[in-house]
Amino acid sequence: MIKALVFDAYGTLFDVRSVQGRCEEVFPGHGSELTGLWRTKQLEYTWLRSLMGRYEDFWQVTQDGLVVACRSVGLAPSQDQIDYLMQAYLTLDPFPEIAAALDALGDIPCSLLSNGTPKMLASVVRNTKLDGRFQHILSVDEVRIYKPSPVVYRLAEDRLGIRREHIGFVSANVWDVAGGKTFGFQAYWLNRQDSPVEVLGVKPDRIIRSAMELTSVMA
Amino acid sequence: MIKALVFDAYGTLFDVRSVQGRCEEVFPGHGSELTGLWRTKQLEYTWLRSLMGRYEDFWQVTQDGLVVACRSVGLAPSQDQIDYLMQAYLTLDPFPEIAAALDALGDIPCSLLSNGTPKMLASVVRNTKLDGRFQHILSVDEVRIYKPSPVVYRLAEDRLGIRREHIGFVSANVWDVAGGKTFGFQAYWLNRQDSPVEVLGVKPDRIIRSAMELTSVMA
Repeated sequence: MIKALVFDAYGTLFDVRSVQGRCEEVFPGHGSELTGLWRTKQLEYTWLRSLMGRYEDFWQVTQDGLVVACRSVGLAPSQDQIDYLMQAYLTLDPFPEIAAALDALGDIPCSLLSNGTPKMLASVVRNTKLDGRFQHILSVDEVRIYKPSPVVYRLAEDRLGIRREHIGFVSANVWDVAGGKTFGFQAYWLNRQDSPVEVLGVKPDRIIRSAMELTSVMA
Repeated sequence: MIKALVFDAYGTLFDVRSVQGRCEEVFPGHGSELTGLWRTKQLEYTWLRSLMGRYEDFWQVTQDGLVVACRSVGLAPSQDQIDYLMQAYLTLDPFPEIAAALDALGDIPCSLLSNGTPKMLASVVRNTKLDGRFQHILSVDEVRIYKPSPVVYRLAEDRLGIRREHIGFVSANVWDVAGGKTFGFQAYWLNRQDSPVEVLGVKPDRIIRSAMELTSVMA
């Protein structure tokens, strides 16, 4: 039934909270708060820009999110500080089970579908030693709109050449799962932290706690 | 130049933080946290549903936002508690200067353009004794997509019969200002709390601290 898996990247394979170390180093005492605000603003900006039709790529939006996150807690980062913090996005930690989970999936083709730019994705995949694990590394930058627009999920269907109902979509971002499910994927929510499900009128097909569970989902 | 003013409702004329009293009454110790989370989730859901093409009206989305806000802090509200808290949205406090500011604007036609349902808007306008102040009370419910989609702002242009560059759009929500400006309104950000401007690639035409300043903007 499921012929391929498509993974979200940020928050799913790569831990966006791993920027906290650099945040704390640059702004002592603000690491945790800044990490949360940065991610919140980054995502808000992807949604707002998509709705307004003002696409800028994820590197820019991530930088804008960082700047406004800093300002909202009274910090005024220099360009050097911004540049240093942005590098954290290229060297995010992978979640610890990811490499083993991909190994366990054996011959099932796995791809990435992400808000990130091609350059950001290439860097983080290389830095986490996941090179060669993915059949396709697909970026919204090709379609210039962000998740959860159906235009993004269609990119994966088109590029994989597999009908949507035969694609399993894996994301730790529950709104992304809702977008993938709305489009017509089999949608698996990787809910590592036992978060409450969002109320968006659509439910994940499966809820898993670790990517290791994907082998039993596929069995 | 400016022939009419169009106001956003929630957060601009009506104080969404005035739900805090009921939140604290129902869930003592959680009033402030719940008020913030509720608003955050309500807005996120408008953006996500708009991007996914899963419109539900603002009454439903506001209720969904409340439910998930409660769950995210470990609360399990009963339907009676939800119903009681939702009533707060029909009886929001107006910001204190609004009636006087509308008076001071004299003959300039003023309208509302809001995410709220027609019923929600009629209730809150009546309960704040602003009946008869607005030429048009326009709801996104007619177009079934939320701000900041340009479809919403076009509704005001169409209904007022005034070209967008002759409409002054007033909102305290800076992302809504960005949406109105992107569409082509003259866009005025009512920044009561000296918040940092969001980085969305577009700047407000004017920033004011109180609706009373609109008379000088229009002079």
